[in-house]
Amino acid sequence: MNRTHFEKELEELHYDVLKMGSLVEEAIANAIASLVNHDTELAQKVIDDDDRIDKIEVEIDNKCAKIMVTQQPIARDLRIVLTGLKIVTDLERMADHAVDIAKTTLRIAHQKYIKPLIDIPRMAEIVREMVKMSLDSYVRQDLDLARAIGEKDDIVDALYKQIFRELLTYMMEDPRNIDQATQFLFVARYLERIADHATNICEWIIYLDTGEHIDLN
Amino acid sequence: MNRTHFEKELEELHYDVLKMGSLVEEAIANAIASLVNHDTELAQKVIDDDDRIDKIEVEIDNKCAKIMVTQQPIARDLRIVLTGLKIVTDLERMADHAVDIAKTTLRIAHQKYIKPLIDIPRMAEIVREMVKMSLDSYVRQDLDLARAIGEKDDIVDALYKQIFRELLTYMMEDPRNIDQATQFLFVARYLERIADHATNICEWIIYLDTGEHIDLN
Repeated sequence: MNRTHFEKELEELHYDVLKMGSLVEEAIANAIASLVNHDTELAQKVIDDDDRIDKIEVEIDNKCAKIMVTQQPIARDLRIVLTGLKIVTDLERMADHAVDIAKTTLRIAHQKYIKPLIDIPRMAEIVREMVKMSLDSYVRQDLDLARAIGEKDDIVDALYKQIFRELLTYMMEDPRNIDQATQFLFVARYLERIADHATNICEWIIYLDTGEHIDLN
Repeated sequence: MNRTHFEKELEELHYDVLKMGSLVEEAIANAIASLVNHDTELAQKVIDDDDRIDKIEVEIDNKCAKIMVTQQPIARDLRIVLTGLKIVTDLERMADHAVDIAKTTLRIAHQKYIKPLIDIPRMAEIVREMVKMSLDSYVRQDLDLARAIGEKDDIVDALYKQIFRELLTYMMEDPRNIDQATQFLFVARYLERIADHATNICEWIIYLDTGEHIDLN
């Protein structure tokens, strides 16, 4: 294998994954901002921009396939490319959840909210950090950073449980809160799922280095 | 490329994907049965068996990588292998949702249910058909079958909306129903997600044949 050429292709792959990742981070941030600020225009932007993310997924898939076929990487090099293929699937799913959140905004933005949203944006902030961590771990192949994501995921899980309990209380207090509280419940669930995908990415990174699949959450 | 050898490896890949698929179908059926019948033992089995599904995913990934490197498929052949890699990710996520449902069983099986479960098992039945359809389309490369999944997905979406509305009514009637109704709501959501993954698989199959990504739902 032509090492230099392979490394150049790998650099390009990393660049594309990071580009896709930053679009996904932006989608999550915008989706939550649209919800908090009753901003249907921003929500629509998140939904419209998802096409672009889907296209980058296909581009990266094709690039990985090309590297496999032309460079025939083996062992660790092969795992780097395989991991690329897996990671973009997780990123694409995260973007889909951002779209789910944006759709929730479109559904309820015209209503007065039953409560100010505080924990959901906090949860979103940590989830975004997790997305960033997972991509940094991939590009730098930093196993310690990848392993550290478990702790963040615990915080997200705890926040999710707290939000869940609080929303149930709102529902029980007044049945008129149920419809909206259910929507917020789903938003919290989407964020928890995004965190799971970031954790998946870190598991792939550890697999990439060790060849072993481990469970980080 | 040695055509016969490639075809033999492809046959093996199809066999593995179908094996993984049938385990996933079984996990979905068992998860729903465990919920309907308050059967915590069966729920625990679904959770325990998930490891096996995860292992098959890794095996198929490795097999696809091996085919890519040793056979260097191009164009359509390459897309068949790439599709294999993508499909197993969807299958693995479906199995995770079956585990989510089984965990719900463990959470509420000791309670008397607020209502008999009728629409959820109906929805699960259609979702299982969709999983089967998607795998049959892949192995037979039957584009018409793949395209037909959109209709089924519409039925699932309609059932989901119906279940959602009904459960909201239960919550509004009596706040003591809220906790359990929320659990059932999530189960319906997990089923809807599984249907989405089956639809994803069909989209990959159409991509495999045409090289074009289309949206089936």
